[in-house]
Amino acid sequence: MPMHHASEILLSLFVIFVAAQIGAEIAQRLRLPGVVGEIAAGCAIGPSALGWVTPNEPLEVLSEIGVVLLLFAVGLETRLDDLKRVGRSAFLVGVLGVAVPFALGTLWAHGSGFAWDKSMFVAAAFVATSAGITARVLQELGALRRTESRVILGAAVIDDILAMLLLGVVVSLQGGGELQLGNLLVVLGEAVGFVAVIGWVGTRMMRRGSAWLDRPIHPLSPLTVVLALCLGLAFLSTEFGLAAIIGAFLAGMIASESRQRETLEHQTQPLLALMTPFFFVITGTKVDLALLGSREALLMLAVVTGIAIVSKLLGGFLGALGLGPRAATIVGMGMVPRGEVGVVIASLGLAAGVFTNQVYAVIVAMSLLTSMITPPALAWLLRRSPEPRVVPPS
Amino acid sequence: MPMHHASEILLSLFVIFVAAQIGAEIAQRLRLPGVVGEIAAGCAIGPSALGWVTPNEPLEVLSEIGVVLLLFAVGLETRLDDLKRVGRSAFLVGVLGVAVPFALGTLWAHGSGFAWDKSMFVAAAFVATSAGITARVLQELGALRRTESRVILGAAVIDDILAMLLLGVVVSLQGGGELQLGNLLVVLGEAVGFVAVIGWVGTRMMRRGSAWLDRPIHPLSPLTVVLALCLGLAFLSTEFGLAAIIGAFLAGMIASESRQRETLEHQTQPLLALMTPFFFVITGTKVDLALLGSREALLMLAVVTGIAIVSKLLGGFLGALGLGPRAATIVGMGMVPRGEVGVVIASLGLAAGVFTNQVYAVIVAMSLLTSMITPPALAWLLRRSPEPRVVPPS
Repeated sequence: MPMHHASEILLSLFVIFVAAQIGAEIAQRLRLPGVVGEIAAGCAIGPSALGWVTPNEPLEVLSEIGVVLLLFAVGLETRLDDLKRVGRSAFLVGVLGVAVPFALGTLWAHGSGFAWDKSMFVAAAFVATSAGITARVLQELGALRRTESRVILGAAVIDDILAMLLLGVVVSLQGGGELQLGNLLVVLGEAVGFVAVIGWVGTRMMRRGSAWLDRPIHPLSPLTVVLALCLGLAFLSTEFGLAAIIGAFLAGMIASESRQRETLEHQTQPLLALMTPFFFVITGTKVDLALLGSREALLMLAVVTGIAIVSKLLGGFLGALGLGPRAATIVGMGMVPRGEVGVVIASLGLAAGVFTNQVYAVIVAMSLLTSMITPPALAWLLRRSPEPRVVPPS
Repeated sequence: MPMHHASEILLSLFVIFVAAQIGAEIAQRLRLPGVVGEIAAGCAIGPSALGWVTPNEPLEVLSEIGVVLLLFAVGLETRLDDLKRVGRSAFLVGVLGVAVPFALGTLWAHGSGFAWDKSMFVAAAFVATSAGITARVLQELGALRRTESRVILGAAVIDDILAMLLLGVVVSLQGGGELQLGNLLVVLGEAVGFVAVIGWVGTRMMRRGSAWLDRPIHPLSPLTVVLALCLGLAFLSTEFGLAAIIGAFLAGMIASESRQRETLEHQTQPLLALMTPFFFVITGTKVDLALLGSREALLMLAVVTGIAIVSKLLGGFLGALGLGPRAATIVGMGMVPRGEVGVVIASLGLAAGVFTNQVYAVIVAMSLLTSMITPPALAWLLRRSPEPRVVPPS
């Protein structure tokens, strides 16, 4: 790497890392989750404010590694059996958490003048929950073992599968295309099969015995082996049309069945300390503050964000009502953050000429706003709700 | 990041990481340092063999972070006082380790038909030692506390300063340019000043008290603070014309004066396990095996590599002779690897039309060959030489 360039990228890394630490510190002193501070720091140093850091390809890759490691660590604190116990609730939350936002999003888009097929495309960008933000809040508050957390994590997997299917449907509907039900079933089967086979076979194999994890000469061999598994499954899940974090989460869940689980949890902490700030700060740098200048756009953003929050909260709430209204509210809130997947769908819509630039910018801003609103709201809800010590069967 | 792209980069990360583990495992079972296996693995999966991975910008950045963290960890195991004790030897090794390769390199280049000014440019690419490879071998063998290791690390800092100056000299001499002695003195003063001030003030401040490292709320706060220091000094040292790893090494040395040193060493291990494979594998992917096809190039490569090894070994040996011939041989061998700096100088020479493509390729290959030859040779020398328990004053 030419030296001058190395210098530039090192400066970016330094600025991002320090901004994240300062942001998290301030947020936590204000009794907010640290992640809020990290995203806000990104917003401050990003192109639309101070302009010290502009997202580029290497930073995107670091950010991706950061969120992959985060979901791996979350998986490491999750047992398959615990997920199974909340399976029914998680399934309902996943399904309703997709159906309600999609329905409300379609109605809003049609009401704003889009044709039905295009309205469904717009609505598809409303759907996908991004588990990264919620997972980080739950982890920060030590709440990963609560029933609500397990429902959220299980639902996030189902949500991701459904969002991917929905995208397939709306893309094929554009321009009067015909819906290929057979293809969709194949896609659904592959995704469900991937998650089920990896989750089930992987955890089984790990339970049988994990002595082989220690076999390599490398002094940190259990860690290096499971990191390889994490990267491998993250890649594989993208090949099945799912988000990389789903594979990383599965890898963590598999590793959590090993005897070395505690060592692994311990060794993963420094990796998170180094890498996750890149994800949250880079997320923040993408907020386009200029958008807040036009009153029309601001209004549209308020409406879209409102629909996005209310619809997801409602879907999640209804799905988890079996756990009682308080827990259901926590679950609903945990499903609110939208992330990259919504942005990716919006980019597709922009490229296909379905959206205007403004609708695109509003959807991106909505994704980020939901990510910024969730952490304090979720922390508040969790703190005032008593922690159930036992996981009840659902 | 578009999903398809995320998929591609995740596959590269997975392939690189797994190749590194397999390579290291095989090398260690053959009683070779793991790093040899990682470089060889890179060579195997790189463009000139299997072609599974091609270096690109994100991978270069990961590789840079990897070597920066490695030198930070090495600094963490190094005390300033121990370096001072070997100061005279380190200084001599640094100076002679630059002078001898530069002199022999200039003679060879002139003998091969280059004009004197261009010969000095070629020779400049022979000079700079890259501490990364040696540091890794010393760390793998648990030899970082040996006197020879301290001499090598101290000499690497001096070597880097001198190499930077030399580059300034030869560039200004091209095309009959005039040597600006004043400018060079300023450059020298800045670099020496940077290292001295940061090294001296930093370690002093840390010795006075390191309780402030624990003050942030972050549960891993000593680590996050020193990682910020590491990135910051890595950046700063590039601003002073030095390699990023010099700043990272200083940051580690400063952190080694803190009370939390052992915790930090412990927490740095997983970071190295994740990131350093990228440095060594990416280094390996740059070996151009096609070069070995032409007999003429192969001969030139053998001669250039021979000169590079013998001259550095001789310079280091003479400089460290005060420690006895065995220790001096270890020090000389430890200085042999050339790295990015030589490649950067060669790129400059290529861009300035001083070198042909072939000379460029040969110099790049020489850098890599020295990096591959050093680990087994150094490991062999260290194993057969008894380890002195006390660091003698130099």
